[in-house]
Amino acid sequence: MIEPPSLEELIAEFSSLPGIGNKTARRLAYHILSRPREQTVRFSESILKAVERVKPCSRCFVFTEGDICSVCNMRKEAKTICVVEKSSDILPFEKSGVFQGLYFVLGGVLSPLDGVGPETLHIPFLIERVKKEGFQELILALGSSPEAESTALLIDRLLEGTSIKRSRLARGIPMGSDLEFVDEITMLRAFEGRVLF
Amino acid sequence: MIEPPSLEELIAEFSSLPGIGNKTARRLAYHILSRPREQTVRFSESILKAVERVKPCSRCFVFTEGDICSVCNMRKEAKTICVVEKSSDILPFEKSGVFQGLYFVLGGVLSPLDGVGPETLHIPFLIERVKKEGFQELILALGSSPEAESTALLIDRLLEGTSIKRSRLARGIPMGSDLEFVDEITMLRAFEGRVLF
Repeated sequence: MIEPPSLEELIAEFSSLPGIGNKTARRLAYHILSRPREQTVRFSESILKAVERVKPCSRCFVFTEGDICSVCNMRKEAKTICVVEKSSDILPFEKSGVFQGLYFVLGGVLSPLDGVGPETLHIPFLIERVKKEGFQELILALGSSPEAESTALLIDRLLEGTSIKRSRLARGIPMGSDLEFVDEITMLRAFEGRVLF
Repeated sequence: MIEPPSLEELIAEFSSLPGIGNKTARRLAYHILSRPREQTVRFSESILKAVERVKPCSRCFVFTEGDICSVCNMRKEAKTICVVEKSSDILPFEKSGVFQGLYFVLGGVLSPLDGVGPETLHIPFLIERVKKEGFQELILALGSSPEAESTALLIDRLLEGTSIKRSRLARGIPMGSDLEFVDEITMLRAFEGRVLF
């Protein structure tokens, strides 16, 4: 191909991002090389800066620049902990303002075939924290894949015999969705979980 | 917001790319921070490397790592020159193999309101080259916006009185498109340009 090697490499790097196909990767690469040089240097530096500074909170694994994230810092007295799969999963909670407790990021769900076991996900650390810190409720806010389900079940089982209340988010029809297009599993869950007036 | 500043900055940088909205930018930023560190450092470096190495060819302004691009180097004897708006516009020509001549990248189209005049687009340099190097044909392969049309007209006018043949790409129905969904202008052009059996 007539593209210079460093441009080809850049296209390959963009292609490795989720949801970015070959055509989009090429468009992005050409675009950033057509912008003023300073702007592109700044983009490169912002990646490096973020990767140097952002790390998982040592208590809950939410992305932070400090040792302890702002949520862990501000809500030391919280009695509720919400377990999510990845750091960005806490955003809808924070945006809605519905939750004032702590979080715990697993960093994935159990997947024995990929070598992801309870230790990789810091599950022993979670259980220890929960037992030691006297939380009143643990909310499991994982996805609905079979792997997520079995991760939730394992955590629930490991806390059997303790007094902590375990809950999970309600499944049902999301706001604004046309009933006609709701999938079968969602309908099943919404029906099973129907609420009395 | 609870996102650390360097992560917020990274999201803003991704948002500045074409076709990348806020949600996608956030997804990409979280993704690259969740990947192995080396991979993200390599991504940052590939941007910097490309921006350091890639520059416009000194003869035709196609992106290259050398002083002169591979096309200008390989096709020194070519008698045809194809004028395009941006470097990536030469890819479909090269992929189809239909063209064996030289290119000239304008770097945009005339846009007086944005301060883009003939000099910014190297039009004087193009005219001088064309007159001096004895090309037989100049193909205008610009877009179909009013600005592109007037850019093509200007170049055509500046070459009036010379013996060089000036042509433009045919407009018409693209391959594989359903006639029902062809827009009016394309239909108009395809009709006007209809070809006898």
